[in-house]
Amino acid sequence: MPRFPQFANRLRSIQGSVFEKYRHRMQALGNELVRLHIGDTYLPPAYLLPIQEAFKQTYPVWNRYCNTFGVGKLRSTLATKLQEDNQLPVTENHVLVTSGATNALSVTVNSLINPGEAVLTLTPCWPFFMGMVKMAGGKVIELPFYDRLHTPELSSITAYLETAITEEVVAIYVNSPNNPSGVVLSSSQLAEIAKVAKRHRLWIISDEAYDGLTFPPHDHISIATQENVFEQTISIFTFSKIFMFAGLRLGYLAATPEAIIEFNKTLVHQLYSPSTFAQYMMLEPLQTRHQWMPEIRQHYQSLRDLMLKHLQISLPTPGGTYFLFFSLEPYLQGRSFDAIFETLLNKGVSVAPGIDFGSHYRQFIRICFTGEPPQRLVLAAERINQVLLDSDENAN
Amino acid sequence: MPRFPQFANRLRSIQGSVFEKYRHRMQALGNELVRLHIGDTYLPPAYLLPIQEAFKQTYPVWNRYCNTFGVGKLRSTLATKLQEDNQLPVTENHVLVTSGATNALSVTVNSLINPGEAVLTLTPCWPFFMGMVKMAGGKVIELPFYDRLHTPELSSITAYLETAITEEVVAIYVNSPNNPSGVVLSSSQLAEIAKVAKRHRLWIISDEAYDGLTFPPHDHISIATQENVFEQTISIFTFSKIFMFAGLRLGYLAATPEAIIEFNKTLVHQLYSPSTFAQYMMLEPLQTRHQWMPEIRQHYQSLRDLMLKHLQISLPTPGGTYFLFFSLEPYLQGRSFDAIFETLLNKGVSVAPGIDFGSHYRQFIRICFTGEPPQRLVLAAERINQVLLDSDENAN
Repeated sequence: MPRFPQFANRLRSIQGSVFEKYRHRMQALGNELVRLHIGDTYLPPAYLLPIQEAFKQTYPVWNRYCNTFGVGKLRSTLATKLQEDNQLPVTENHVLVTSGATNALSVTVNSLINPGEAVLTLTPCWPFFMGMVKMAGGKVIELPFYDRLHTPELSSITAYLETAITEEVVAIYVNSPNNPSGVVLSSSQLAEIAKVAKRHRLWIISDEAYDGLTFPPHDHISIATQENVFEQTISIFTFSKIFMFAGLRLGYLAATPEAIIEFNKTLVHQLYSPSTFAQYMMLEPLQTRHQWMPEIRQHYQSLRDLMLKHLQISLPTPGGTYFLFFSLEPYLQGRSFDAIFETLLNKGVSVAPGIDFGSHYRQFIRICFTGEPPQRLVLAAERINQVLLDSDENAN
Repeated sequence: MPRFPQFANRLRSIQGSVFEKYRHRMQALGNELVRLHIGDTYLPPAYLLPIQEAFKQTYPVWNRYCNTFGVGKLRSTLATKLQEDNQLPVTENHVLVTSGATNALSVTVNSLINPGEAVLTLTPCWPFFMGMVKMAGGKVIELPFYDRLHTPELSSITAYLETAITEEVVAIYVNSPNNPSGVVLSSSQLAEIAKVAKRHRLWIISDEAYDGLTFPPHDHISIATQENVFEQTISIFTFSKIFMFAGLRLGYLAATPEAIIEFNKTLVHQLYSPSTFAQYMMLEPLQTRHQWMPEIRQHYQSLRDLMLKHLQISLPTPGGTYFLFFSLEPYLQGRSFDAIFETLLNKGVSVAPGIDFGSHYRQFIRICFTGEPPQRLVLAAERINQVLLDSDENAN
């Protein structure tokens, strides 16, 4: 069974750019080189964009293709961030800029997993990940995890994971802070997972989309810092969550330079590169992150606490992300999950059904506590209480 | 052999969103609905972007997730454009917005081609297309075409294509205007291809990235308008070429509404959606296209003619795109292709090697005549002449 350090077979058919071997010579020529090899235009767009002046002033090169690994200045700034915030021993050559964490995960899965191979997937988990593995011809082995950490069956993470690792498994999917449960794994929990991955040479696909979005006393730790698994770990990040810019579709991943070169082959065949000016746009917010992030974290925490206060049901307090995830089982009172889901919708509250997050979570719902302003969160909490707890409501 | 109207098996494992069936009810609730089902933030980014004010004024919803099929207003505007410019009988439900034509092609290939199936690929062709097919586990059957249209072996397009269609072929890749040759296919040529595709129920993957970039007397015609093949054709477009905004990474495809729903499954698993504000940005340029496009086309034509005038070699005149594509064979004089390629680079001119565009084009080069300003094009032409024609140079 091919595992770390082997990549998926589908990359074997892909050549890198012929210009890779001439890169230094071309750089040395500088402006002496007349570049006729790329299909591009030397002109700015001929139409006037409403924000064209602002663009031109701020981002000198904004309308043209960029390096498909990412804009150089952004890659080096991200490397600094990954060193400082995540304690990862990286240079800009360890960084690939992607079109969001979704794209980073898709690039990772397609670069690592062959048809028939399996990914041990700790659940509940973000739904699209399982879809990606299936679309690559891989198998998802779901292992209920984040919501069961303090139950007897999970008294030893090592033993629990070991029982699930079959010959087919080549990678493990870890997501802390976890969407949807809000669980933030501790360094000792991550170390246990890392040890098992190390022993079996599993690739670790570490989805860290909620990096920066943890609440005291929790802190986000990158699993790649544990137990010498850095080289077999793909650490995945995004500008959609704590950077509050989901509409930008920008993310990045950190891995060995060898992996980055292979992963880039997958990326260019999916979308060539992420947006040039989207990358320039994030330079400054990255550099100023310590100024504005604490206030946002605090505000999100206050929204979490507001929601927990108004919901008249007993819930685990999420240590990170912006989600609550809980089972409706205590509130069914003879009703089906679907009936409650639909009643909530009719009452004007949309929630995400648990089944999307893994086959063990059919009775769960996930709610986001940052997508609506505070007064509407309170309104939603009241409606949820009414549907789940009100006996009149239940009599209907 | 599964062909039109069947999609690739990998889509079978993917469910659509559970909310699809509640869409109308949710829309009817309007602002009454408190949306807790999506992970999102109700706040604009907490940091100040240099262009934030310009954004806010112009694009009311710019930082959040959008409909993964594309922003509604853009889809309907694109449908109008496709009706007016391409004579395609489409509504907004026939349109999927993508992250460039690259992404549209990747989504198409992954939604149509099973491992082991083949795509009849007319060459020379854009290199990444062949890579996409291989990465999906498919086979590329290369058929030299665009540069041989007026040769005896291609006296009948129908007969020529028929000989290349094996049991494995499920789709044909057509690209007019063609990158790299600049050939623009006529309606009768497209009709011949369409008839063959119709007879064999082949999907037609029609790469129309250079839509709008043709020079008189040539006009771009969409193959989907020919011989009733609309339903089996995927027509692919971009904002990177005549819209001069490659760095935006925005494109779109047109297909049946049934195909659009299937293709969206592939897209969301690659990158969730294209950028929200990138989509809003293109609304106005789309609506004003007839005002600014003619001047650009004319200017590009003058660049083409400038390059042809200064290059002292005999070349076919491209009817569209911004490329010249020709064989170095008459200029080798005992030198290898690689030697000339490297000499050009050392003289300060980078060109694209023909092998990237198909195995029959090892001796060819492609040059782009719009990526550099006119005076640098002339400089490049002089250097190319020197390397290809100068006997002193050849003596070295």
